[in-house]
Amino acid sequence: MLWATSPACTELETLVLDWLVQALALPEKFLSTSTGGGVIQDTASSATLCAMLAARERATNLEVNRTGVTAKLCAYASTQAHSATEKAIRIAGIGHENLRRIPTDAHFAMDTDALSRAMRQDRDAGLLPFFVCATVGTTSSNAVDPLTEIGPLCREFGAWLHVDAAMSGTAAVCPEFRYIHDGIEHADSYCFNPHKWMFTNFDCDCFYIADREALIRTLTILPEFLRNKATESGAVIDYRDWQIPLGRRFRALKLWFVLRHYGIEGLRFHIREHVRLAQQFASWVHEDDRFELAALVPLNLVCFRLKSGDDENQQLLDALNGSGKLYLTHTRLSDRFTLRFCVGQTNTVERHVSEAWSRIQDEAARIARQ
Amino acid sequence: MLWATSPACTELETLVLDWLVQALALPEKFLSTSTGGGVIQDTASSATLCAMLAARERATNLEVNRTGVTAKLCAYASTQAHSATEKAIRIAGIGHENLRRIPTDAHFAMDTDALSRAMRQDRDAGLLPFFVCATVGTTSSNAVDPLTEIGPLCREFGAWLHVDAAMSGTAAVCPEFRYIHDGIEHADSYCFNPHKWMFTNFDCDCFYIADREALIRTLTILPEFLRNKATESGAVIDYRDWQIPLGRRFRALKLWFVLRHYGIEGLRFHIREHVRLAQQFASWVHEDDRFELAALVPLNLVCFRLKSGDDENQQLLDALNGSGKLYLTHTRLSDRFTLRFCVGQTNTVERHVSEAWSRIQDEAARIARQ
Repeated sequence: MLWATSPACTELETLVLDWLVQALALPEKFLSTSTGGGVIQDTASSATLCAMLAARERATNLEVNRTGVTAKLCAYASTQAHSATEKAIRIAGIGHENLRRIPTDAHFAMDTDALSRAMRQDRDAGLLPFFVCATVGTTSSNAVDPLTEIGPLCREFGAWLHVDAAMSGTAAVCPEFRYIHDGIEHADSYCFNPHKWMFTNFDCDCFYIADREALIRTLTILPEFLRNKATESGAVIDYRDWQIPLGRRFRALKLWFVLRHYGIEGLRFHIREHVRLAQQFASWVHEDDRFELAALVPLNLVCFRLKSGDDENQQLLDALNGSGKLYLTHTRLSDRFTLRFCVGQTNTVERHVSEAWSRIQDEAARIARQ
Repeated sequence: MLWATSPACTELETLVLDWLVQALALPEKFLSTSTGGGVIQDTASSATLCAMLAARERATNLEVNRTGVTAKLCAYASTQAHSATEKAIRIAGIGHENLRRIPTDAHFAMDTDALSRAMRQDRDAGLLPFFVCATVGTTSSNAVDPLTEIGPLCREFGAWLHVDAAMSGTAAVCPEFRYIHDGIEHADSYCFNPHKWMFTNFDCDCFYIADREALIRTLTILPEFLRNKATESGAVIDYRDWQIPLGRRFRALKLWFVLRHYGIEGLRFHIREHVRLAQQFASWVHEDDRFELAALVPLNLVCFRLKSGDDENQQLLDALNGSGKLYLTHTRLSDRFTLRFCVGQTNTVERHVSEAWSRIQDEAARIARQ
């Protein structure tokens, strides 16, 4: 898939991704008019892999691309980071033993002292700290890693900073939630998923990079049957060289429709409403003595549980999901079984949230009677 | 994306991919009821990467996944194989210097004597030949690598055989074209793209593997928030572990519609018609003294050129593509600029092909007059 295959596909993608830099108030270095740019990936796991590959090649001056992994590379992510990082480090030929899982603080955000110690220890041992994946809104609990502290550490050790804001990034369309991105100016790459919380059909991950040449150098190949004047002029973008597969779809179109349909003000309205509903749900949990909140609720994800124990919470989850009326997933926080309630879909309104809470209360009562 | 996320999505995919094993008369080891199975990938480049990763881990007993690339692995593909192999070997951390490009015979098919020599030489030098990508219908010229000879070599050297039949595989729905797959019983993995020549919207690559455990072991990860009874029972398929990204779309549905709409007889009718039209076009080229065929025409791709020279052929391509009436791509065969004419789209009928030939003749006349 070249620019020449469908110029509109590429041009609209560039346009829409530049719009989103402005909408989320991301650093200007992610604009296509700067040294960087954005590209639509299928999912955040692919974005993480692309970031790691570009980091791998930056750290080794393209040596891995040429001769394979020989240097002793180390990557870092918190114990709460998405498993995509582990999948990526295997695919990249670096091996999961070289992924350090950094402990978190009481609120499940990365402990930067521990990160600093780990990077120093690796460097002292002759290893090369090359990549840190920080999370803005972890999958388990929506914890936000402190980019303002992680960024300077990455610079000190020469490591690439990738920021994964898969669900939560969308919140930054609202100025009052932009604090989640504090320190984002340190990031070498960043992604968020409009298919998670921006009313866009799966799949649609927006991946931004500060130095697009680092990515393109890593992934470009140009056999004869792909040579063409537009590409060779250097005046156009071949997004094929910004991603794992060589082919690609016209994903920008659905995103363009979303942005034109809602507008920034429309998006803000819905995001604020989702956060309000989640906070309301959290307050109900807090007021019910049988339940407790298992984590802070910065945005639209509520982690909660019955105080009684893991068995009861597993029973509660099974009963709710078995009802066919609502669907929750679970996680473990502080080694305790925890339910996750997330408000983020296009048609979710107050009624759905209050009905869900009623059902949860009813099931909790039934379990207590057993 | 787990089985539990959408059981229908997974179950229909398994069903449809099993149907296609029968439709193309592929080996039974690719059936889900056997030791293998199929999965829909976005593109053949991702299928090649997945095959290479599974091969890498089989060759090193999962050591690369654990500790990174250390063994000296070598992969093989012909000089005519798709550039996806080169992209994959870089991503996999093995390095493109460890991809041997094997020369081809007079008809652009892999020279198996050269393959044998290369593998022996590498093994004697202490390297580990782990992966061969054979092509059934190369992109440039539709050449078919001799699987019956390549297969035994792979077995001798313990290398994984991946067969890339991205466009041409579809031809095997017609019994008279199944010879293209002679030797496919040696393959560890195989892919073809219904989005190329089976009337299915992009993206849709069908990737088959003989030993699904080899693939799953390579790509699986299971954090707490993805744990669920269905997955842990082992009774269901989590296709997330059969591909690079963790999320996935319901691609099987469009493929199901295509198969139900056309039926096998309908597909055969159109495939035969496309081959007939391409052969007719080839005969017109052959009969026109100004032109020559640049390669054999086994199926629906015609490689041809003006006898006069590269400049004239480049002019011809530019004039045709600039007209907005038809679009050809080019390649280089025997180091000469060559035009590619392919019949394979849903609505292409005889009129389009004859009109295209008229335009090509007219432009050739205009160029000769200059």
